[in-house]
Order: sequence, then structure tokens, then C-alpha cells
Amino acid sequence: MSSCAAMPPAHPFDDDKLREECGVYGVTGLPEAANFVALGLHALQHRGQEAGGIVSYDPDTGFNSARRFGYVRDNFTKASLMETLPGTVAIGHVRYSTAGKKGAAIRDVQPFFGEFSMGGAAIAHNGNITNAEELRHDLIERGSIFQSSSDTECIIHLMARSMAKSIPDRMEDALRRVEGAFSIVAMTRTKLMGVRDALGVRPLVLGQFGDGWVLSSETCALDIIGARFVREIEPGEMVVISADGSLESRRPFRPKASRSCIFEHVYFSRPDSILGGRSVYETRRQIGVELAREAPVEADLVCPVPDSGTPAAIGYAAESGIPFGLGITRNQYMGRTFIEPTEQIRNMGVRLKLNVNRALIAGKRVILVDDSVVRGTTSQKIREMILDAGAKEVHFRIASPPTAWPCFYGVDTPERSKLLAANMTEDEMCAHLNVDSLKFISLDGLYRAVGEANGRDPKAPQYCDACFSGEYPVAPSDMIAKGFTVKAAE
Amino acid sequence: MSSCAAMPPAHPFDDDKLREECGVYGVTGLPEAANFVALGLHALQHRGQEAGGIVSYDPDTGFNSARRFGYVRDNFTKASLMETLPGTVAIGHVRYSTAGKKGAAIRDVQPFFGEFSMGGAAIAHNGNITNAEELRHDLIERGSIFQSSSDTECIIHLMARSMAKSIPDRMEDALRRVEGAFSIVAMTRTKLMGVRDALGVRPLVLGQFGDGWVLSSETCALDIIGARFVREIEPGEMVVISADGSLESRRPFRPKASRSCIFEHVYFSRPDSILGGRSVYETRRQIGVELAREAPVEADLVCPVPDSGTPAAIGYAAESGIPFGLGITRNQYMGRTFIEPTEQIRNMGVRLKLNVNRALIAGKRVILVDDSVVRGTTSQKIREMILDAGAKEVHFRIASPPTAWPCFYGVDTPERSKLLAANMTEDEMCAHLNVDSLKFISLDGLYRAVGEANGRDPKAPQYCDACFSGEYPVAPSDMIAKGFTVKAAE
Amino acid sequence: MSSCAAMPPAHPFDDDKLREECGVYGVTGLPEAANFVALGLHALQHRGQEAGGIVSYDPDTGFNSARRFGYVRDNFTKASLMETLPGTVAIGHVRYSTAGKKGAAIRDVQPFFGEFSMGGAAIAHNGNITNAEELRHDLIERGSIFQSSSDTECIIHLMARSMAKSIPDRMEDALRRVEGAFSIVAMTRTKLMGVRDALGVRPLVLGQFGDGWVLSSETCALDIIGARFVREIEPGEMVVISADGSLESRRPFRPKASRSCIFEHVYFSRPDSILGGRSVYETRRQIGVELAREAPVEADLVCPVPDSGTPAAIGYAAESGIPFGLGITRNQYMGRTFIEPTEQIRNMGVRLKLNVNRALIAGKRVILVDDSVVRGTTSQKIREMILDAGAKEVHFRIASPPTAWPCFYGVDTPERSKLLAANMTEDEMCAHLNVDSLKFISLDGLYRAVGEANGRDPKAPQYCDACFSGEYPVAPSDMIAKGFTVKAAE
Amino acid sequence: MSSCAAMPPAHPFDDDKLREECGVYGVTGLPEAANFVALGLHALQHRGQEAGGIVSYDPDTGFNSARRFGYVRDNFTKASLMETLPGTVAIGHVRYSTAGKKGAAIRDVQPFFGEFSMGGAAIAHNGNITNAEELRHDLIERGSIFQSSSDTECIIHLMARSMAKSIPDRMEDALRRVEGAFSIVAMTRTKLMGVRDALGVRPLVLGQFGDGWVLSSETCALDIIGARFVREIEPGEMVVISADGSLESRRPFRPKASRSCIFEHVYFSRPDSILGGRSVYETRRQIGVELAREAPVEADLVCPVPDSGTPAAIGYAAESGIPFGLGITRNQYMGRTFIEPTEQIRNMGVRLKLNVNRALIAGKRVILVDDSVVRGTTSQKIREMILDAGAKEVHFRIASPPTAWPCFYGVDTPERSKLLAANMTEDEMCAHLNVDSLKFISLDGLYRAVGEANGRDPKAPQYCDACFSGEYPVAPSDMIAKGFTVKAAE
Repeated sequence: MSSCAAMPPAHPFDDDKLREECGVYGVTGLPEAANFVALGLHALQHRGQEAGGIVSYDPDTGFNSARRFGYVRDNFTKASLMETLPGTVAIGHVRYSTAGKKGAAIRDVQPFFGEFSMGGAAIAHNGNITNAEELRHDLIERGSIFQSSSDTECIIHLMARSMAKSIPDRMEDALRRVEGAFSIVAMTRTKLMGVRDALGVRPLVLGQFGDGWVLSSETCALDIIGARFVREIEPGEMVVISADGSLESRRPFRPKASRSCIFEHVYFSRPDSILGGRSVYETRRQIGVELAREAPVEADLVCPVPDSGTPAAIGYAAESGIPFGLGITRNQYMGRTFIEPTEQIRNMGVRLKLNVNRALIAGKRVILVDDSVVRGTTSQKIREMILDAGAKEVHFRIASPPTAWPCFYGVDTPERSKLLAANMTEDEMCAHLNVDSLKFISLDGLYRAVGEANGRDPKAPQYCDACFSGEYPVAPSDMIAKGFTVKAAE
Repeated sequence: MSSCAAMPPAHPFDDDKLREECGVYGVTGLPEAANFVALGLHALQHRGQEAGGIVSYDPDTGFNSARRFGYVRDNFTKASLMETLPGTVAIGHVRYSTAGKKGAAIRDVQPFFGEFSMGGAAIAHNGNITNAEELRHDLIERGSIFQSSSDTECIIHLMARSMAKSIPDRMEDALRRVEGAFSIVAMTRTKLMGVRDALGVRPLVLGQFGDGWVLSSETCALDIIGARFVREIEPGEMVVISADGSLESRRPFRPKASRSCIFEHVYFSRPDSILGGRSVYETRRQIGVELAREAPVEADLVCPVPDSGTPAAIGYAAESGIPFGLGITRNQYMGRTFIEPTEQIRNMGVRLKLNVNRALIAGKRVILVDDSVVRGTTSQKIREMILDAGAKEVHFRIASPPTAWPCFYGVDTPERSKLLAANMTEDEMCAHLNVDSLKFISLDGLYRAVGEANGRDPKAPQYCDACFSGEYPVAPSDMIAKGFTVKAAE
Repeated sequence: MSSCAAMPPAHPFDDDKLREECGVYGVTGLPEAANFVALGLHALQHRGQEAGGIVSYDPDTGFNSARRFGYVRDNFTKASLMETLPGTVAIGHVRYSTAGKKGAAIRDVQPFFGEFSMGGAAIAHNGNITNAEELRHDLIERGSIFQSSSDTECIIHLMARSMAKSIPDRMEDALRRVEGAFSIVAMTRTKLMGVRDALGVRPLVLGQFGDGWVLSSETCALDIIGARFVREIEPGEMVVISADGSLESRRPFRPKASRSCIFEHVYFSRPDSILGGRSVYETRRQIGVELAREAPVEADLVCPVPDSGTPAAIGYAAESGIPFGLGITRNQYMGRTFIEPTEQIRNMGVRLKLNVNRALIAGKRVILVDDSVVRGTTSQKIREMILDAGAKEVHFRIASPPTAWPCFYGVDTPERSKLLAANMTEDEMCAHLNVDSLKFISLDGLYRAVGEANGRDPKAPQYCDACFSGEYPVAPSDMIAKGFTVKAAE
Repeated sequence: MSSCAAMPPAHPFDDDKLREECGVYGVTGLPEAANFVALGLHALQHRGQEAGGIVSYDPDTGFNSARRFGYVRDNFTKASLMETLPGTVAIGHVRYSTAGKKGAAIRDVQPFFGEFSMGGAAIAHNGNITNAEELRHDLIERGSIFQSSSDTECIIHLMARSMAKSIPDRMEDALRRVEGAFSIVAMTRTKLMGVRDALGVRPLVLGQFGDGWVLSSETCALDIIGARFVREIEPGEMVVISADGSLESRRPFRPKASRSCIFEHVYFSRPDSILGGRSVYETRRQIGVELAREAPVEADLVCPVPDSGTPAAIGYAAESGIPFGLGITRNQYMGRTFIEPTEQIRNMGVRLKLNVNRALIAGKRVILVDDSVVRGTTSQKIREMILDAGAKEVHFRIASPPTAWPCFYGVDTPERSKLLAANMTEDEMCAHLNVDSLKFISLDGLYRAVGEANGRDPKAPQYCDACFSGEYPVAPSDMIAKGFTVKAAE
């Protein structure tokens, strides 16, 4: 059942990147809390560009909500809208639509809200509940009416059916039924809550601003409002912050070793965020350094594929001593793709987005540093542009290992058959892309760059790297029920 | 919790009328069923001008839905929208917002949809469930999550919790729990259903068009698509029409004597509809005739208050022999009020809507025929305009008895203290309005006009006339729980 | 050259009426003058529904302008827009687009503005300059740049090229060069001006409100703001009202006998306006009386074709003694047609707009009173509906003579070949429409109804009746240059 | 006179940059020419972000035009709009609004169009006509009506009044009357024309694509459609390209030595454009090299102020051997500012746009490389952010000489009193900004970077550098008439 209450969102220009599906943010103890949430979501926009939503609570007007397609800055900055979201506690969410879902509905935009007998609660999450389909089936059998196609809604229904007397207790009840990888922010009339799954796959950090508390997917969204970074929410931790500013830490899950997502370091998080105690920018620069050590090549120019390849390219250039230069210019007015384009415009393809700096490239042996290769379609187009501009040689250096497995933890990945690295060896990919050389950083090299001096511990990997290794730390139940075969642990 | 997915609807220029809150329509067995529903809703627009919704079902795309604020003709006539509503079965709804509800939400616009384990169902209704608050409280206690503030949603949740195996059976289960006055259209993937409450307070008619069936609040909406009027759904009847065109009649309620709403004849229904076997136009004209007999006065001109007073004025003129004339002109571009008006424009008040035909009125003794007096504010303004234009005398004749009691059956009435007739006698009202005379038709006169030659049967009134008599045929449980005192039966 | 700055306006549901193309309004000496102009234009909306514009002047911000497609009430009532139009002098305009012009442009929406060396002037007009194409050609030859396709713009360019020292003098200069039938309102920084062509074909009235003056196409637009009707601007008169409230009357044209448009009485003007000293409503009622005398027939019901036929039907019924009844109901939510309708909806045709009151019509001999027959397409559809509803006989009585000639004075008429009466006799039309009888009022009868006891003076007709008689009081030069043959004077 | 036909455009977040006011583009000899123009304008968007317009000519529909506020990609990529612009010849324009003009009007958006007796012409220009006010005054005196406040419209009126028989000849006539610095693209029904002023201040290049010709402000907009760069239009040259593909070169101006704008190299042009035979990126990188030589300093990090300072920072780092790093992250969703922001959001200031990469900056001596200092307000905010993040020292290095004079040649500069460098010495600015050091590149250093090995020739400067030197190669007549004092030539 599709509802057309808003314009269908634009789909990004190409689908040749993994995409984080969500960012979450919550604030309590600050006047006009929703304004701070709007700013936080603006800083988290890279985690979800299609839609956003904010819920706030105010004793006079109750729970208020606004959900919109489009950028945060185009919706949640207008005084006329923000005035409808009063109160000192608020949560918010930005999202991509789920892969394969045609016709996204505003109904699917978080936060979700439920009215219980002891009052209402709103909830937003980043990640994925891997047994959501099974839960949904069971809940419908018992008479629950679902309003969205989102997995998050299961949590609301589980809470509604809990016999516990307080909303935080009901959330604990609900969490014990869900499997998966997720970071949650939630709120009641008086409380702000944050949850990170048992393995801590998805990020969530805690900040303080004046008398108020902030929860955010990343630290860069603390910076934007001037909040102080306190600490990460720990894997398996649930924090409950009361109106008086007191913070209670609960542990709804059985303790496990942390397995946070390594791809956050490679691509998802903003370079100016601090993740796991490390600067994301520095990690990416270090990946470039490792890559230069693992896969050196003689060349005249190290050129990043804009914009995400830049820190690794800087590292590669510094380590190799080959000059760094911006050989590809990105059209900065190309944030989203064209809506309803003419045929001619569609055919222009990558040229609408990127232009080669011919004078810099012509006659040179060029090392192109990119963050990842997913389908390989963009890499091919860039190779063509570089050669058209007169490059003598083209060498690809990729700042992540081959992406060979889909993510089931809240990241939009193509199905396995579409992943270039699931179907080809590195050499085959090099031939397929028709470049002079192609090298990916090794999994161990990546682990070294994120600070594990001895690389990956194969018996107890320090991170979730399922997209590279195929080792899924949480069994993807719904997918397995549909026939997906998980690689046997080695 | 208010959602601002669409512009808040304009509120009509004055609130000095009772307002039907809804119109319903359903079609099965016709290609592009949603198009027919759109036409039907356009013809029922007078029953609800704020918002409308359509749900259709198509085997390829499943249930599809569109809900919009604004007129049917501005939304549900566009090919680009209607193409998203394919299939041979569809239902629709037009509505006013409920009185006192600030910030109407698109979530409250019907039809409502629920997914059950045996498939989905959509439902729309006209009327009011008088024990909705009690039902809602009980359902929330048991873990149901409500998405709207509408009483209709109770029915969906009751159906979700029913143990019955088919959706029509589940609806019967649900209906046995609800009290009130309502006409329902509902649909599943293969069935169109219609229900009228046990007393038949709210109208619902059945039509046939080619191989298809139509359910509609009024016959005028059969005419617009060229459908043949078959019969009224009987009080207490539930019809279930299958994809093969077969129609099953069920009786979910205990049999009672019919008490259809007499105000439908006075004001709500369109004059070109047939209601209870009678032409609404003829009934209204006959009210004018009765009124001329009951309350004659010497005068020069019978002038309707546009547009709803016209048929009664024609009858009054014909019976009295006093010339009929259009002394008040209505601005036809004034369907809704101004949005965000300047102070100056707001102050113009009734002049934006009506203008007196000075040349016709000056020096005359004028009988103004209006359909009803609710708060009396409009009557005062009209009296002023008529006297400003030089009328010698102003006599009000009202085509309904004094409206002294609120309706709890799906009609938007002010609270009792705001009803002029709840607080004053006819003579006091005449003095208050400062007119030369003021006469209402008697309750018996009204019953005669609708065809009861002997007038009202006080022991077993043939109609629901609670707004005039204070005798409520269905106990308004939620209101009583809040302290409303129902008049003891005489 | 078309500009698409706004949505193309909807075209009215059928084109089977003559259409006035414009209404004009001006105010001086009142604070927030533009607000009064907005109200006036709202009252004149029937004269032009596609677009409207207002220009005001304020010493601080200079000339300000807003032009919009759509209804006045949807645009010029919003505080946010009206605040951009400050000042004590303002003029405004509502318009239809010119026949045959596809893709109306906001550039063509009046008022027009020109900056001269002694300051700016804005101008709006109702009517048509019959030598506009010749003037335009000459002006372009001399280096004028036209920005619109409107004939009004010629006046601005003629004023720009005048050697006179004041703007009113320049306007006199310009007026001496133009031919045609027009009423003009214009303004400078300090003056409001009104002009009526030498024959006074198009209407223009003068009103007073407090210390301010008002110019308006019709008196109903004085009523809406509470202004007092002073007098009509005389044929050939130009009034210049200064900031101090003084009014100067000039005579730019050679004196001629008045020939005001008789169709204003029949259809264009609102029934509550006073035109030529007569109530338009009363004139229309009197046309019905004359028609009953000229063309009696035995029947059971006099039924107006809504809404414009109603006053004549009341007159016909009163004179004939046959009962008056509203046998056709107009859908009041059908002010404009559907935008981008589906095929199915388009096919519904007249049923979207009108419904027959079957119970009133069945078995009756019905007299249908309509204001005019242009192409005859609507008449045919109405006959069908009436017969489908079971009428025994259908008699058409038309409240105007046969419309056999196009108007070149600011009224949108089809070309002659499309006018039913240009190609058939009354009997042929009756056969063509397949009705039991069809009678038009005679030209003399119409003149009697407008107060000429002896009917039309064939030697010196008191009105412009070119659309009926083919006698054009102003030679349509541009049309003649294109080959249109004007009937030789008889 | 302001017209509000469209939303007022957002003003960019800060006004602390000089802004090119326009980009122009023209295409002939290609089917669907307007599509190519749209792509070209998209590539030139950095030259004007507020509005854009396209005019095309097609034998069937004549001249067609569309002008819109907002980005090219949001308007001129939709099939529904582009279909209204058919034909094989088209021109287009992107623009900023003129400084100080409140309430930009769509009327002021180019291209402008004029209908002459021998047919129409459309024209768009980049630059400024320095005697436009005088010309406008003279033209109005003679009866021309101006529709915009744009200087470009003068050219159209001069053409309209020319006695020459062809449009190109009329344009030559007009050009001989105008003073200033401008690049023009213009078109008739069959011809595409390009003009560069006598000194060639503003850029204009010629390209070829298949059988078609292209005119563009920059070469990057040839790349986007795959066109081949042929040559620059020469200073003082007018090219007239006919429908048969023949190109005629005319010389309407007296020959002068070229003085192209040096700021195009510093900031306006895109880094991937070729200007005066040199890569803009390489020039900027070379500026960094020169700057490192002229103004070395001991430090730990060379950090660009994003994004325009990046190439110079790369050059500075390479030359100095100090590591290059991205210490400041730009929010890529911040292309334009917030519309109607809440107070709280407004107060966030530069943090909405930039975030410091704390981990990279803390404890370091940082060299910040920026392209220019205009008012100095942004520099102050950036200094604060960098110090807040824990930098030990902050050294500003500016890739252009002090901007001390306003530009009158089509660049939006603040008035002199607002220019920091017009009021302070380098040392005073350093103290004012409170940084450890501040150095601008010298004018000679800049000339060396653009390829003049011997630096600037003070007797005959090779470029227009008025914004740095105060030496205006074209006397700004209108400004002088208003009292602006031009520096005496040294």
C-alpha cells in the first residue's frame, strides 16, 4: 500500500557505493530541543539523504512530529515548521530508502510513535533487525496493525504488548526479542533513551551541552551545536536520561565482544568524526600509507576519486613521494541527480558530476585512489575519462578490501551477484576494468590502519567485516529463511 | 501528535451551520474503479470538504491508497494520481475535520487500512461510534497501537483481534462491539461491503452500473456516473458483494425500528438526491409550503438565504402568493474562506460572500427563508445587510425547528451553550435578532413535509430528531461518561 | 515567445458562453489601497477568472506589482503578498486569456507599467483596441520593444513617445491614436485615472469611500468594500483624481451618442450590479416577462438553466403562471474544470457540473430558460439529461436574441462559423437541438426589457448589439485588414 | 517595481567572497539545442547561482523562453520544461542578482528578448555596461519602455532604434554606444552571435561539436557536452555564426591591447577550465608555489580553506615540504543557505558550513591557505574554530594580493569602505585578524604564476587587476557621475 503524500525522492546519481541507511540524533534538557536535533541531522545528512523526521514533546501540546522527504536544510530549518515542534526533548532521524523498495512512503519515515496506556514513546533507529519479518508475522497473527514497512515498527508493537509498567522496562522487554545490529534513540514525555546492539555494530555517541544531553550517530554532529563529546555508548548498553539530567546505564543484552563496523572508518562516517577513539580522517590517510606500502607503483601523479578518496590519496602520495594533484573536478551543484531528465541529459552520465582536469592528466602515469569498488560501473567510466584526457597509464588503488558480501546490518548493498568482487579475482577485475594495475588494500592492512598493529585476529575479529570476509557476527535469520547461505566459519 | 504532511485545510467562512462530517462511496466490478469513486466523491463533496481518500486493490500492485487535503476535483481527477490507484474494487471518503480538533492530520483521513493474517481490508465510515473512547482505551491496554484520532480505527483493531476466519466475519464480530450511528463502506481484495447501523441513522444506498455495484451516501452520486439506483441499504443490514457480482445480505445487529436522520432532508443531502423514497428538493419545497401555512405574514417579497434556503422559499412563495425573488447574491468564487487573510479582508466578513440586491430589496417588506438557525451569527449579519439596503420589514422563516441539542451521530454541532435555541425561546430569539418576526417550522410540520401525514409519533418517532427534540435514540456513552446529561424520555 | 513562469491556467469546462475578458478596479486616498483593490477584484472575478494583477505606489518603496494566475481569493488575500503592495493608490485587473492564445504568459497579465522621464504609470483595461495591430507595427518600426502580446501595451508605448509634459496629458495623446471599446484605469505616483471610450461600450463606475475614490467595472464591487456609488464614468470621459481628492473630468474624444454593451445586461454583469441606472437582476427578470409574452407555451414547469438563467426563469414563471422549480442542480464545487483529467472523467462531460432533479422533471412538460445559445453544445447535453430524466416535452426559451456575430470589443466569442445562430434559422436550430420548441427573445423585446419602451431605434440604436445585429459601432480595423467583412449598415 | 512571480532566491551563506555575476552559453546547429545549453549552464553554475534562463528558436513555434530562480539542475533538466524549448539554436544565462538590489525579479533574469521589424533577437551577457545609466536615461527620454533594471536591456533598445537593416548590423551599431567590460551571446532566428569587449576583460570561448558551434564563458562547459575547444573569442571580436555553419568574424570596436580579468585565474573560473592557454588549476597551484617562496614560515601542516584554497595549498605544501592535510571539512549539503531560519540556527553561523578536524589540528602550527580576503569576516571565524580545536599557531597565506578596490566590470564587490584591504595595511590586517602571521601574494608574484615571467608591466599591465591596483582600464562613467574617484594613473 503506497501513499503519495509527498514527491517521490530523487535517487542518487549512481548506485555504485555502499550506503549507510540512517543517522539518529536525540537531545534532552535544552530549550527548543528540536532546533538542535535539526542541526545534528544536518551534520548527519551524509548518512541518509532521502528523508528526515523529528518528534518532540511539550507538556502543553503533547507529542509533535514532522516527517519530510528531502534534505534537512530544506525542511527543518524553517521557523514556521520548527515552531510546531516545541519542547526540551526531541529525537530525529535521516534515512535512505531501503533497497528495492519502489515508491518510498512518508509512513516509512522515522521516528515512529506509539501511544501506550502509560503514555507515548517515539523511536528511531540506524541498522537492521535481522528477524523483523518473523516478528512482524507473529505480531499480525496476534492482532497488531502495522502502518509501515519498516522493521523499527516491530519494536513499538513489542513494547505495546509488554506487561512491564514503565516504558524503559517495556523497551528492554522488546529488545530481548529482536536480533540484529542497530543503534536506537527513543523518547518518552520525560526521558531520552539510547541503545546500541550487543556487538556495537552501528555507532552511537553521547555528548553534553550545557545542562543538556545529546545522543548522535557521530561526533561531527556534536561539534555542529558546540556539544562536548563524552563517550561512545557501549556495545549492548542502554542509557536512560531523565528530565533531571540523571543518566542511568542498563544492560538489556547478554555481554559479547565488540564488533563495530569497519566500513564506518572506510567510508560511512564523516572524516571529521572521532570513531572508536580515532580520527576518521587520520585512519583514511593511514589506509593510503598502508596501500602505498602494499601496492607501490611508478607513476607521475596521485589523484583521488572525489571526494571520498582524498584522504587515502594524500596518505599514498606522502608515503610514495609521488605528487598529489586534483585531476578530477567534481561539480559541486550535483548533490542529487536530475529529476525527470531528458534523454539527452541522462546520456551524459558521469560527465554531469565529474570533469577531468585535462591539463593535469595529459601524458601522465596516474594513480587513482578510490575508497571502494562495488559494481565497478563508476570505475569504468572514470578510467575512460582519464584515458580520453590523455593519461599514459591508469593505476587503481582501492582503500578497502574487495567488497564481496552483502551487509544485513543497515547498509544498502546490491545482491551478491552484482558485487564485482564476489564474482572476480583481483586480476580478473583489473582485466575487466582494463587498467594498467588494480590493487585493493588487504584486510590485515586495513586492520593495521585502524590501529590493530597485528592486523586482524582471525579467531576473534575485532570488527564486523562481513562485507569483506563473509563472516556474519549476527545470523541474518530472515535472509536465511529466504535461502541465503552464510559462509561456514573458518 | 500532529503531522504536517500537507497544508492545514481552510476552515469554512462561518461556522453557523450544522455540518455533515462525511460521505462514503464504494465500487466493485468496474475497470478503473477508483475513477468512479472519484466522481462519486465529487458529487458528495458537500458532505465533507476538507479532505478525501481513496483505496483500491489490484492483484499486481496490491492495495493502493491516496489521501489528500482539499477538494476531490483538485486531487482525484489527475491522471498522474489516478494511475496509482488501479483495480476493479475501490472505496473512498470525503470528510470534515472533527470539531475542536486543531491541526487536522492526513493520518486522520479515511479510508483506514489494516493488514490481517488473511489479507488486508480498508474501511471508511460516515457517522460516529459513540463508545469509541472506551473501545480505544481497552484496545490500547491490550497492546494495539493507534495511528489516528479517528473512531473508525477502532473497527480495524477489533477486526485484527477477532478469531474469525474471514474478513466479513471479522467485521461482524467488530460491529457487535460498537455502538453509534454509522454507515460503512469497506473492501478486501475481492469483496465490497456496506453496513448501516441498526437504526439506519446515516444514509447508504445501493446502485448498479453495467456489471458493477456501487455503494453511496446519496443517490446524486449514482447519477453522476450514470448508475441505476437499486435500493437503500436497510437499517441494520450488512451487504457483502463478491467479485463474481453476487450480493449477500447479513444482519449483524438485533432488529430495531428505523430512525433515519431527519436533518438529511432539511439540509445535509443534496436537493437532487432521493432519500427514503422522497425527492429531497420536493421535501424542502413542501417545508416551505407548511411554513407558509403555519407562519403567514404580509410582505412584498419572499427571498431565500442562498443557497440552501431556496427550495423552501419557492414553496413559501407559491403557497403564500407573495412574489419570489433573489434578493441576496452569493459570490460564487467563495467556496472556501481566505487563507492567511489581511486584517482588512477579515473585517469585511459576510460581504465577501453575500451581496444584497439593493434595487430589489429597497422599500420592501421582505420574508427571508433560511434552512436553520444554529448560533444565529449569520442571521444577524444578513438582517443588517437587508436593512442597510433599505428593506422596510424583515421577517425570518426557518425551514427547520429550533436546533437545541447537539448531534452525537457524525454531525459537527457546537456545544449546547452555543446553540441559540438551547438558550432562548422563539420570541427571545426574535428580539435578539431584532427582526420584525421570526418563525420556525414546528416539529410536526416538518414530519408532515417528509410525508408523515399525522406528524410525529411521540411514542415511537419515525426519525432521529435528537437535535430538535433532545431524544437520543442511541445512548451517547462516551459523552455520558464525560458528564453529558441526556434528557429523560418523556 | 512564451514564458512559463506559472502553471498554465485551467480552461473553463465548456466554451459555450460568451466571456467578458476583463474587470478593472482602482482606489486612491485610502490606506492599504491594494487590499481594497483585492476585494474589488474578488467581486469582479466573474469578469475574468484566469489571472489577476495589482500595482500600488508607495513613496518609500516606489511602484510595486504582483501578477498571478488563478483566483483573486487564492492569491491577493494573503498578508504575505499584500504587504508587498503598500500605499494609498492602487489599481488592479482580472482577466481571461484571449481566445486562441495557447499558453498564456504572466507577461500578458495586466496592469502594465511604464517608466517615463517624469515618473512611472500603470494601466489596466477592459475591452479591446481595434487598431492595436496597426499601432504595434508602427511602434516597432520606430524602435519600441513590446514585452507582451496585449493590446494595452500600445497605450504605454504611445504615452512614452508623447511630447506632453504630464502623464495625464500623455495619456490623452495616446487615447487619440487608439480605436476601439475600452474602459481604462490607470495610476501615476499621485493620480488615479479612469477612461471610458467615446461610445461607452464597456462599463466603468465611480464610487466614494471615506476620503477615498474608487473606480470599478461594476457597482457590486463598490458594495463589497462598502463604498457609495457616485455615478457612471460617462462615455468619452476621462477622470483624473489627485492625491488631495480633487477630481478633474476631461474629454479626450470627439462626442458621440452612447452605445453601451447590451450583453452586459443579459449575461456579463452580476445581477446585483446597477447598470445604466437599472438593476441587472430586474432587467433579466423583465426579459423573462417579455419572453413569456412573445413566446408562450403550455407546460408544467419553468426551470432555469443554472445559474445565469434563473432571473429570466423567475420572470417567465411569474408572467405565465406556470410553476417555477429548480429541476437542474449545479455542482457548486465545479467552479473550474479538472486539470489533467483521466479519460473516464473527461467523458462524464456535463454530468460533472449539472444533475437533473429527476423526481421534479419526470412526466412533466418543461420550459428551460437559458441566457444565450452560442455553439449550442451545452443546450444539446441539457436536453438529453432532461429527457433521460423522463420529461414529456422540452421547450427552450432563450433570454437573448440569436448570437450571430463575433464581438471585437473585449468579449471572447468563437469565430462566426462556430456560432449556431450564424448558420441556422430559429427553426433549424430547434430541429438541430431536437426540442419541442425553441424561442429567442426578439431584439425589440430585449430593448424593452432594458427600459426602451419603444424597442430598438434602428436608425440610432441605443446600445451596442453587434453580436446580435452585426452592426459594429466601431469599425474593427485590424479584423477588416485581415479580411473580415462588416455587414453594410441597413 | 518589484514583481514576486517566484520565490525570492536565497542569498549565499556569507558575502565574504567576490562573486562573478554571470555565465553565458550558446549553441547552434544541434538538434534540441536547449538541452545542450542546459548542460553548459549546469557546468557554469558557479558563475551565477540565483537564476538562469534559456531562449531557443524553432520555425514552428517561434522564439521560446524560460527563466527561473534556482539551480539549473532543478529547473532546466525536466523534460516537461525542455520540451517547450525546441529548435537548433539556443542561448542561456546564469546569474547572481546585483549587489544591493532587494527583491530580485524574474524580469531581470536574462536572456532578454526584443522583437524588431525584421524579426526578434535574444541576448545575454556577462559583465557590466559602465555607461548603462546614462544610456537608459537617454533612451527613456526618447520613448523606450524598460522592463527590467538590467544594463543588458540597453543593448536591445539601442538595437531597436538602429536604422541598420540586419540584426548583426544593428548589434554593431548598439555596441558602438556602450562602454564597459562584457561578453555577449545573442541569437536571431538563424544566427548565433558572440561578442567580447575591446579589452577582453570577461572570458568567452568557442567550441565545436559535430556540425554545431558552441559559445561558452569557460572551457569546462565545453567538456560537459563533449565539445572540442576551438579558441577564445578575441578581445574586441564579434562572431556571427549562420545556420549553414559558416562563421564570420567582425571587429566592431577600435583595437586595444588585451586586459583580461586576472581574478578569473585566482577564483572565478573552475579549476578544470583552460583560460588564456593555461590550466586554471595549475595557475592556482603555482600561486601556492610563489607564495611559499615569498612568504615561508615554519609550521606542521598546510591546510586549505575549502574548497577554493585547495590547489594553492597543494602548491604551498609541495614547495615548502610541509605536510598537506584537510583540517577543515565542508558540509557538502550546504550549497545554499537556509531559507527562513530560526534564530538558533542563524546563530550557528559558520559551523553549519565548516567543521574543524580536531584530531588533525590539535597541537599543530597550521598554515591556512585561502584564495582571498574581502571583508575578513570569514577569516576571523575560521581562525576561532582552528584555535578552539587546539592549534598552536595560525598563519594565513592568501593566494591573491589585497583586494582594495571595487570591480565595476560585472563582479559583485562590496563598496570600498567594506574592503578590509582598502582600510588596513597587511600588518594591521594581521593584528585585526589576530593571527600569528598573514601574508598576501604580491601582484608580481601573481603575474608570475599566470605565466608572466617578469611579473607585471606597470606601464602596460597585461591583465585587468583593478581590484588590486585600482587602475581601471575602462572608465566607470556611471560611477564617476555618482562621485566615485578613480585613482590617477601612476
